[in-house]
Amino acid sequence: MDNLTIALDAMSGDFGPRIVVPAALKALDHHQNLKIILVGNTSEISPFLSENHPRLTIVESTSVITNEMKPSFAIRHSQGSSMRVAIEQVKLKQAQACVSAGNTGALMGLSKLLLYSIPGIERPALVATLPTIKKGNTVILDLGANAECNSEMLVQFAIMGSILASTMSDITKPRVALLNIGKEDIKGLDRIRAAANILKADERINFVGYLEGDELLTGKTDVLVCDGFVGNVTLKTVEGLIKIFLSSTQLMSKGNSIFAKLAGHWVQKKMANYFGHLNPSHYNGACLLGLQSIVIKSHGGANQNSFLAAIEQAILAIENNIPERIASSLSSVLPKSENNQCLQKF
Amino acid sequence: MDNLTIALDAMSGDFGPRIVVPAALKALDHHQNLKIILVGNTSEISPFLSENHPRLTIVESTSVITNEMKPSFAIRHSQGSSMRVAIEQVKLKQAQACVSAGNTGALMGLSKLLLYSIPGIERPALVATLPTIKKGNTVILDLGANAECNSEMLVQFAIMGSILASTMSDITKPRVALLNIGKEDIKGLDRIRAAANILKADERINFVGYLEGDELLTGKTDVLVCDGFVGNVTLKTVEGLIKIFLSSTQLMSKGNSIFAKLAGHWVQKKMANYFGHLNPSHYNGACLLGLQSIVIKSHGGANQNSFLAAIEQAILAIENNIPERIASSLSSVLPKSENNQCLQKF
Repeated sequence: MDNLTIALDAMSGDFGPRIVVPAALKALDHHQNLKIILVGNTSEISPFLSENHPRLTIVESTSVITNEMKPSFAIRHSQGSSMRVAIEQVKLKQAQACVSAGNTGALMGLSKLLLYSIPGIERPALVATLPTIKKGNTVILDLGANAECNSEMLVQFAIMGSILASTMSDITKPRVALLNIGKEDIKGLDRIRAAANILKADERINFVGYLEGDELLTGKTDVLVCDGFVGNVTLKTVEGLIKIFLSSTQLMSKGNSIFAKLAGHWVQKKMANYFGHLNPSHYNGACLLGLQSIVIKSHGGANQNSFLAAIEQAILAIENNIPERIASSLSSVLPKSENNQCLQKF
Repeated sequence: MDNLTIALDAMSGDFGPRIVVPAALKALDHHQNLKIILVGNTSEISPFLSENHPRLTIVESTSVITNEMKPSFAIRHSQGSSMRVAIEQVKLKQAQACVSAGNTGALMGLSKLLLYSIPGIERPALVATLPTIKKGNTVILDLGANAECNSEMLVQFAIMGSILASTMSDITKPRVALLNIGKEDIKGLDRIRAAANILKADERINFVGYLEGDELLTGKTDVLVCDGFVGNVTLKTVEGLIKIFLSSTQLMSKGNSIFAKLAGHWVQKKMANYFGHLNPSHYNGACLLGLQSIVIKSHGGANQNSFLAAIEQAILAIENNIPERIASSLSSVLPKSENNQCLQKF
C-alpha cells in the first residue's frame, strides 16, 4: 500500500506525548510506507523527538478533551482539541485513520458527528479481536462505546461482528454468540433474549446461542456480542488477570538457588508460549466499527508497546478496507431505500 | 455449636445426587457436630449411599425445578419439589440453612416467599467472598440474583456488603466500591452514578469510588457492588481464567526430560501457592444475603469439592449468625417505624 497515513491524538491517554511519540517513531520504523500526523501541542511533543522525521508531521491543537468531561460537554467545546483535530485529518482525507487514547464517549460522539455512521447502523461499537487459548480469535463487541444497548443494537453488532470475522479471519459462517448469565433460553435480560430471537430467525447469521463468562477465551465462538458496560468490565477483568499471571512467573524466578533460576526461566518461556499472545499489550486498540472511516480507541493507560499495538490495529483496518467491506456487505443485503432504516430487517 | 443442621437440595445442579451425596458425606466427616437432611428422590440418592449414616436423613421430594423453567413458572409449580422442600426444612426449623445448585431465579423467589427478606431490604443479593491476590478478601455482590438493579438496590447491597465484611473479616470501616467502566465521576450508567452520590453522602459507608475490571483481585476494596448480570459474567470470567491458568501448569510438566518433570512439579507447587486460593472449587457457594434465614446457591456445574465448599459456606454463615447480624445492624440505624421503608434513608 503506497499511501498509509495515520493521525494520532498525541495529547490523549494518561501519559500523552510521553507514550504516543515514541510509539509513533517505533511504528514508522516498522512500516517504511507509513506516515504519521501527530496532533497536539508542539512544545509538549518536541521533547520526545530528538530530530525531525521525514514521515512525521505535527499538526497543532489548542486544547485537550479530558476523561473527566461529559461527552456532550466535551463535544460542544471540542473545537481545536487534539482529539477533534485528529479526527478532522481523516475527514479532510489527510489521513486514512486516527488513533486516540482519550475519552471514549467524546471519541464516539465526535467520530459520528464528523465521519458519519455507515448507512443502516444506528450506533457504532467498539470492537476488539481477543485471542483465544486455542490461538484462534474472538471478535468481541461492544467494549464501551454504548454502555447499554437495546436488542436492535445487539443485532446490528452481531451482524457487523460477523462481517468483520469473515473478513479478517476468512471464516465463511462465523459463529455468533451473545454473552449471558446462563445457557438456557430464559436466562438473562429481556433485550438479550429479544436479540437472540431475532438472530435465531436470521439464516444469514450462524447464531450459536449464549456464552457464559467462563468460556470467554475458550474459542467456542468467533463473535461475542454484549453491551458496552459488560464488555468493558469483562475485557478489563481478563486483562487484569492475565497481567497478574504473567507477572507471577517473574516473581517465581526470583529464588536464590540455581534450580529456582533455571526453572523460573523455563516457566517464563513456557508461560509466554501459552499465554504471551493473550498479553493485553499485544492486542490493545479497539476499532469503532460502523463508522464510514477508521477510528481506533487505545486504552487510556497504554504504554509504548500497547499504543504501538493500537497503531497496528489502524494499519490492519486500513489495509483490509474495513469500513468499505462492512458497508458493502450491508448494502448487498439491504434494499437501497432501506439503507437508513433499522437493521433489524437485515 | 451443638445443633448444626443443613438441608441439601440433592436433586439440584448438573449432576444431582451423584455430586451432592458424596459432598454431604465428606462434610459430615469434616464436622462431627453436623447433621444433613438430603432432600430428593430416595431411589436416586440411595445408589450413592453405601450404608445409613447416623447424622444423615432423607426427606422425600416428588419433582425437580430445572434450569430451563422460568422462575415464575417454577415457583407456581414448586409444591413438592426438592428445592422447595429443602427451603421448607429451614422454615420449619428442621435446618438452619439450605444449599441448592438449582435455578437461581427460582431459589431467590422461593426463598423470599418462604423465608422472607430482612425488614428494610427490597431484594436479597447473591454474595460471595472472593479471595484477592494479596490473600485478603473482597465481598462481591450481586452475583446474579437480580440481573438489573436500580440505585436503591445497589445502595442496599453496599450496606449489606459492608456489614458482612466487617462481621466476617473484622474490618471496622470496610472500603466499598462500585464496579464501573472508568474511575471518573461521569463514567458508567445513571443508576451507578446515582448510587455513588448516595454512598458518598453517607458517612457510615466508607465509599472509595469506582473500581474497574482489571482491579478485581488486587485487594483495592473490601466490598464490590454491581448488578447481578455484570457480577455473574465477571465472576465466571475470573473463574474460567483461573481454571485455564491452573490447568496450564499441569500441561507444562508433561515434558519428557527429567528437568521438565522437575521444573513442572516445581511450578505446579509455586502456582498452587500463588493462585491455589483463587481456585473456584475452593470458594463455591454464594449466600442469598438479605434473607431472614440462610440460603446458599452453589454453581450448577459444581463438582464434589465445590459443592462441599458451598456446604462450608452454609456452616460459616450459621456459625456467624449472618442474617441476625445484618438485621440487627440494619435495625440499629433504622427507626422502628421505617424498618419496611426503602433503605435509602439508612
